[in-house]
Amino acid sequence: MDGAARRGVFRTPHGRVETPAFIPVGTAGSVKGVTPEQLRRIGAQMILANTYHLQRRPTADVVRDLGGLHRFMGWDGPILTDSGGYQVFSLAKLSKLSDEGVEFRSHIDGALVRLDPYIATEVQNKLGADVIMAFDDCPPLPCDEDRLRIAVDRSVRWAAQCREAHSRGDQAMFGIVQGGLDISLRQRCAEELIKIGFDGYAIGGLSVGETHEQMAAVLGPVAASLPADRPRYLMGVGMPRDILAAVVAGVDLFDCSLPTRNGRNSWAFTADGPLKMRNEKHRLDQTPLESGCDCETCTRFSRGYIRHLFNAQEMLGPILTSIHNLRFYQRFVARIRELICEGQLARIVSEFPIAAMAAVDGTGFQPVSDTGCKPVPR
Amino acid sequence: MDGAARRGVFRTPHGRVETPAFIPVGTAGSVKGVTPEQLRRIGAQMILANTYHLQRRPTADVVRDLGGLHRFMGWDGPILTDSGGYQVFSLAKLSKLSDEGVEFRSHIDGALVRLDPYIATEVQNKLGADVIMAFDDCPPLPCDEDRLRIAVDRSVRWAAQCREAHSRGDQAMFGIVQGGLDISLRQRCAEELIKIGFDGYAIGGLSVGETHEQMAAVLGPVAASLPADRPRYLMGVGMPRDILAAVVAGVDLFDCSLPTRNGRNSWAFTADGPLKMRNEKHRLDQTPLESGCDCETCTRFSRGYIRHLFNAQEMLGPILTSIHNLRFYQRFVARIRELICEGQLARIVSEFPIAAMAAVDGTGFQPVSDTGCKPVPR
Repeated sequence: MDGAARRGVFRTPHGRVETPAFIPVGTAGSVKGVTPEQLRRIGAQMILANTYHLQRRPTADVVRDLGGLHRFMGWDGPILTDSGGYQVFSLAKLSKLSDEGVEFRSHIDGALVRLDPYIATEVQNKLGADVIMAFDDCPPLPCDEDRLRIAVDRSVRWAAQCREAHSRGDQAMFGIVQGGLDISLRQRCAEELIKIGFDGYAIGGLSVGETHEQMAAVLGPVAASLPADRPRYLMGVGMPRDILAAVVAGVDLFDCSLPTRNGRNSWAFTADGPLKMRNEKHRLDQTPLESGCDCETCTRFSRGYIRHLFNAQEMLGPILTSIHNLRFYQRFVARIRELICEGQLARIVSEFPIAAMAAVDGTGFQPVSDTGCKPVPR
Repeated sequence: MDGAARRGVFRTPHGRVETPAFIPVGTAGSVKGVTPEQLRRIGAQMILANTYHLQRRPTADVVRDLGGLHRFMGWDGPILTDSGGYQVFSLAKLSKLSDEGVEFRSHIDGALVRLDPYIATEVQNKLGADVIMAFDDCPPLPCDEDRLRIAVDRSVRWAAQCREAHSRGDQAMFGIVQGGLDISLRQRCAEELIKIGFDGYAIGGLSVGETHEQMAAVLGPVAASLPADRPRYLMGVGMPRDILAAVVAGVDLFDCSLPTRNGRNSWAFTADGPLKMRNEKHRLDQTPLESGCDCETCTRFSRGYIRHLFNAQEMLGPILTSIHNLRFYQRFVARIRELICEGQLARIVSEFPIAAMAAVDGTGFQPVSDTGCKPVPR
């Protein structure tokens, strides 16, 4: 099962990232409800922040003037910013998409905003993350062949423009492979990006409407087409089994808002599957969210208390469940790293049965989304 | 200025409380947005929880079955529960008030609920706090003489019934002095309660509509009428200058939801007065909420970042501001304790000018309430 799974270290100006790694999402410069000190104790190595959200509020100029993203967020570890491409296509009311870029209405105030490779790169240079992303054209799936081809051509052209516009030597830049579920198109995209030359390569345009099986089928060949000596990053993914499939395909980095988003909705991850913490059955339960978990939540609080917090609409319910979920993801990838070293990755499924579960299963819990990784504001 | 100010230690089964002390409010068994670990680092010595809220949700039986309030909340320090009297009169739609008790509609679901001295005591015995309060009749101010006299007579009678019903030797029980702004009525109430005999004495029925000056005028004579060897507790108070006036009168314990409630509303306390953190003027401000403050928020984040968090409706805004405000109150009372020992309490006003400020002043900030300590759900 280990397949192309690999254990690595990615070095950044703000520290090392042991891979495979899971990157919590701090959309607007904050992992919702969780302080940087708590993130550190959770074992988060790197945080993602969203260029689109930060440029809308408070703007990249303000972040730069407040000392750059690390100082702004109070997080002195590695940070990655996306390019804004995904948000433009998922959040904004598009007004104009062309080979030059996009013009759209902000989801906040309806203001007309322009994004193109030069602007996306300049904004990310100002924000100052350790890793910045090329600006890409990210169509939702399913997607017809012509549109996919346009997206790939455009993403490659834009990637070259981003590389050219990139002005800071202390920031790594990753290119993004597009191409939907078309493997040969993705491989061509990868080749073109490698010609341009990036510090790492992301697989984008997945977890945007396709099934787990469709995604898994693409990952192996695409990861294999990327340089072995560069980090590979699957954007916006996902449920434990999605991560496992991608690790087996040879992917190193993952980000997803599921641990915090689901945590706010009272959904707790455990190795044996998710729990809905509003459920009456937890009322008198003195056990922790997950026995054996070493997080602040599980070492201190009962399921009965967490259920009460959600019922009473106390902020601490979302906070404590998010902390546990983030720690769950860190424990999951930490164990994956260990098992890769031991050549025993297949054991992960018996230790974390959730890694073989779809978000919709027979246990009666209410799934947050159909696929477990539907496109959401990252 | 030191007046009757005094420095003391109050011992409970879960630890010592250095007095004067400020007790953060954890209404439904959680200090809103702040974890017990953060509370410990903030320097909180004791937490208050509300009997009324906990009895409505999840009920005292559930709290008891989950191991009692300390284990339920994950807080192993001292806890105090109120009797529910205040909430009945401030929150509930009263249906019937008599010498026997009250029947009312729950603010949550409209259910008919009964509270009387026996029930309030039994519920608090089940919850298991270190300090429990007698059930009292707490009329809002202004209040006519007859109603006040009835409230005092009833509170004394109920206090005796609570004392009699109290079934746990490990819980201290405090009586509550009522009597509005009528000093002789309050002194009579105190005398009667002392005859019954309590482990400590609270001053209730203040901060319910009267001015700071009216409250301050009552505190000295009432505190002086209480035993010197028992803790004196002013319930639900308040702004720094209210606390200072009460300390000078010889009061030892205070609780108030202002630090967290105002924190959630972007109101940050500083020694020089409050800040409204949504204000545009903080946009590029790299300084902490309060320079010299040693809290997690001030040592790590800028005003510009906090403003951004409130603007972007990030949970971390309320969380970080609540943490600072709670630490501000702990720093304030810690300094009061030091200055009492030095016989220099008057210096507190130059070190904390806010202790001489009303909530409504000329600095242009938006006050949360007229008096700074309006009656709110505790």
